[in-house]
Amino acid sequence: MLCTYESIFREVEAQRRRRTIAIAMAEDRSVLEACKSAQEKGLAHTLLVGDPEKIKPLAAEIGLELQPDTIIPAFTEEENALRAVQAVRAGHADILMKGHISTPVLMKAVLQRETGLRKGDILSHVAVAEVPTYPRLLLLTDGGINILPDLETKKAILRNALGVAVKLGIEQPHVAVLCPIEKVNPKIPETLDAAALQQLGEQGEFGNTIVEGPIATDVALSAQAAARKGLASRVAGKTDLVLVPNITCGNAFIKVLMFLANAKVGGVVVGAQVPIILLSRADNPEEKLYSIALALILSD
Amino acid sequence: MLCTYESIFREVEAQRRRRTIAIAMAEDRSVLEACKSAQEKGLAHTLLVGDPEKIKPLAAEIGLELQPDTIIPAFTEEENALRAVQAVRAGHADILMKGHISTPVLMKAVLQRETGLRKGDILSHVAVAEVPTYPRLLLLTDGGINILPDLETKKAILRNALGVAVKLGIEQPHVAVLCPIEKVNPKIPETLDAAALQQLGEQGEFGNTIVEGPIATDVALSAQAAARKGLASRVAGKTDLVLVPNITCGNAFIKVLMFLANAKVGGVVVGAQVPIILLSRADNPEEKLYSIALALILSD
Repeated sequence: MLCTYESIFREVEAQRRRRTIAIAMAEDRSVLEACKSAQEKGLAHTLLVGDPEKIKPLAAEIGLELQPDTIIPAFTEEENALRAVQAVRAGHADILMKGHISTPVLMKAVLQRETGLRKGDILSHVAVAEVPTYPRLLLLTDGGINILPDLETKKAILRNALGVAVKLGIEQPHVAVLCPIEKVNPKIPETLDAAALQQLGEQGEFGNTIVEGPIATDVALSAQAAARKGLASRVAGKTDLVLVPNITCGNAFIKVLMFLANAKVGGVVVGAQVPIILLSRADNPEEKLYSIALALILSD
Repeated sequence: MLCTYESIFREVEAQRRRRTIAIAMAEDRSVLEACKSAQEKGLAHTLLVGDPEKIKPLAAEIGLELQPDTIIPAFTEEENALRAVQAVRAGHADILMKGHISTPVLMKAVLQRETGLRKGDILSHVAVAEVPTYPRLLLLTDGGINILPDLETKKAILRNALGVAVKLGIEQPHVAVLCPIEKVNPKIPETLDAAALQQLGEQGEFGNTIVEGPIATDVALSAQAAARKGLASRVAGKTDLVLVPNITCGNAFIKVLMFLANAKVGGVVVGAQVPIILLSRADNPEEKLYSIALALILSD
């Protein structure tokens, strides 16, 4: 089981198969800086889709060496999305990364039925946090793509995230379906979905996984909290994956970890044929590298 | 401005007016332990409503000294709620606290139009966190009462919380109306409410307060994150109060602070004639004392 980003970096290096990341609209300083770090660490090659006249001076400025054929010219957002997706489909790249392009344009190209990178029906975001105060990696989904998923969508989101857990070597993921309480309450719709997901889990729908819900954050994170509440929880304090009911909750959870709990957090969009990296402009270069390492470990 | 629970404790002591807390259904070991700590710290007197035959042995066990007239006999949940509320209305207590009674029964008695403790229309929960990694107290509302408030309810929740900020000596509260992004997006309803609240704030609706929204957690907590996103935010890194769009988000935010960011967190229900303390069974004795101190500082 991988428990730290350090071990994820080491695992990627040990695989000795250098992957290539295709970047849509690479004329973005902070994205190019992340590429440079990844190349210097020997983690990945990059394929830069975008305007060569904009990319070259930026690359020179930050000292990123460009090999011949590293740049695929593209100028509009749509063209950038198309060329980057094509590069992946043609086998020239193993991972897709968003550069200076808007997310909806990139996602539209990814989701095209004929020409895109569809696999399942649902794309979803998975964050992976290494938290100094928590004994294992904490995965969270979905704080990035799905706004207010219904039960069917939550099932797909959960499956996507369990795929990530497997790649991280978590043999029997402990899943907390997050709610504010541990009882089903019709006034709080996520408690109904949570109970349904727990039952589906018990029926084997999600493989070798312990799914528990409704469950509140304190119980998910702490066996002591569960004991004080008199709850017999199998995941309390051992939660590997938190499934949140809405995007604001997921985003807040992860950002509190990053900004107030000194967590190292990477994130990746899964559910397509390849991992997709959507970096936030607010991430610092180190954080961008966590997302890249995560995408690399997920890449087949 | 009070910036730590230590300073809140000192302020309560300095006021030299010993308040009384009425506890509905006091036959609860952990609640009695909290009372004992509060009495020992010289913070408050307690008035125990409940079954004397159950309270006395528990009090003896934990070494809580009972004065004559400290217990008001009551046996059913409804009777407990009624007697505790009556004690407050009669001026025998300044604060109401939930013991071994269910929250809805207590709240029903509080909200009775004729016999209850109504003031405004909305009761709401405010958490106050002292976070080692954040330079000021962080208030959050509402992670405890209102499930999915609409705009009108959010206005009342915000006003309730601003009352707490004032009592903590925050002269011009910086409020972040939490969303996952900083742009209005009709698919994410809280972004519309957030924009409306910011505008109402600019029009003076909330007094000497800076209200900003939609705003994501990273920007609310970090000026650097705002700068990296190219946002000119007046609250970034200076947020005093986070207004969340739903209860699961608020509950998760606070519990992550408590369990993974070593925060000291107290909470109180405001909007009634007196502060109401709803302790969680998962709180440890120290955490219960934070809530009591908070209620005391809010009590007129």
